[in-house]
Amino acid sequence: MAARTAIVYGFHAVTARLRHRAGSVREILVERERHDPRMRRLLDAAAAAGIRVQTVPGDRLDRLAGHRRHQGVIAFAEPIAAGASLDAVLEALREPALLLALDGVQDPHNLGACLRVADAFGAHALIAPSDRAVGITPTVEKVASGAVDTVPYIVVTNLVRSLHELQERGIWVVGAAREAETPLAACDLHRAIALVLGAEGQGLRRLTAQTCDEQVAIPMSGEVESLNVSVAAGICLYEARRQRGATP
Amino acid sequence: MAARTAIVYGFHAVTARLRHRAGSVREILVERERHDPRMRRLLDAAAAAGIRVQTVPGDRLDRLAGHRRHQGVIAFAEPIAAGASLDAVLEALREPALLLALDGVQDPHNLGACLRVADAFGAHALIAPSDRAVGITPTVEKVASGAVDTVPYIVVTNLVRSLHELQERGIWVVGAAREAETPLAACDLHRAIALVLGAEGQGLRRLTAQTCDEQVAIPMSGEVESLNVSVAAGICLYEARRQRGATP
Repeated sequence: MAARTAIVYGFHAVTARLRHRAGSVREILVERERHDPRMRRLLDAAAAAGIRVQTVPGDRLDRLAGHRRHQGVIAFAEPIAAGASLDAVLEALREPALLLALDGVQDPHNLGACLRVADAFGAHALIAPSDRAVGITPTVEKVASGAVDTVPYIVVTNLVRSLHELQERGIWVVGAAREAETPLAACDLHRAIALVLGAEGQGLRRLTAQTCDEQVAIPMSGEVESLNVSVAAGICLYEARRQRGATP
Repeated sequence: MAARTAIVYGFHAVTARLRHRAGSVREILVERERHDPRMRRLLDAAAAAGIRVQTVPGDRLDRLAGHRRHQGVIAFAEPIAAGASLDAVLEALREPALLLALDGVQDPHNLGACLRVADAFGAHALIAPSDRAVGITPTVEKVASGAVDTVPYIVVTNLVRSLHELQERGIWVVGAAREAETPLAACDLHRAIALVLGAEGQGLRRLTAQTCDEQVAIPMSGEVESLNVSVAAGICLYEARRQRGATP
């Protein structure tokens, strides 16, 4: 596999990468003119992790990032998601698994948006079946806002079989289904879980639904029949993090 | 006021319009080649409402809609007036207000998606300033999947002034801000509230932020800097409904 480099930019993203996966950071570039407390904290974190930091003019950062939204900090890092295996992901965990699985989501905007919420709420991987899911297209990458590099995207040949394998590892498989009687907030999301969401409108396929240990509904009240899958994924992951009581 | 016509397209949007405001539908055009059950149900609903239906070639629908995403059905209807008044909305309430206000959201997809989550979680109105917000375009209407017809969309000339007016009526104004210290779940959302969200990336404008009674953050942990505004709106409204303990 050819070496690839991800450019991670902005205080939040670079700090998160340093905190969670410092070993993947190759080098950090910071803007010469920035000396605020936020920058000092970032430099301290980089020093603690033994990461090389270079001070450069702001316009060089603009050029490298391709925009000006870098807040004066860019990291060159290993792209995390490339070639991840579910085994490797699960073995590296230091908290109960929080996985997102998509059943039949075929729209690249939706996949990108799901990767983005998976990243935002620290899901450990996004799982999708190869027969129905989209791959990582440029549209996915753009919509994902960088999350393509941070959230392992695991394509499986048979989602139901993979969910069974997760169950054998003690992971509770929770399906989101409009018609379920248990409201999301009543489901215990502290334990190791995989949240399974179906395509908008279609919902979970029958076999997928049957495989779930539990089905939950996001309580809704309006006339709209369903939520966009990335909104539903964001709410499920938010609720899991809320129950767990802390950011990972 | 000059007569205007809105073009509503797609099964879901047209069916929702027929269900909630059949009187506003002037005529429906359907594609000649479509005879599936979904189309039959729509035709039944149109007949029940006494709406005239014309069968036309698909390319005429393409031309009228300006795209091919109409699924073979277009309705000509009265535009839903952005004329709903906040007074009327607030006077009709039978529970503490749950309002969504957008500060500078200019993308029609985002507005449509916000209307949709507002509907899903029973927000009583969506408020946006006229100087920066988009109007109800056909794209908004399609993305909103019918929520344009169910959620009052209130355009105000000065958002800060309107927020002050809400405060004078005892409504607590809660801004979502990335950097806020209070996590969303720690904010009391039982009382009458207006949730204010800024445009993605920009966040709340300074004056808007200063006007808020409280600022809250959706706890996030990843490298992505922000959530899509409709995902953030969905999470805030979900949390409000979760706290309130029941669907409205």
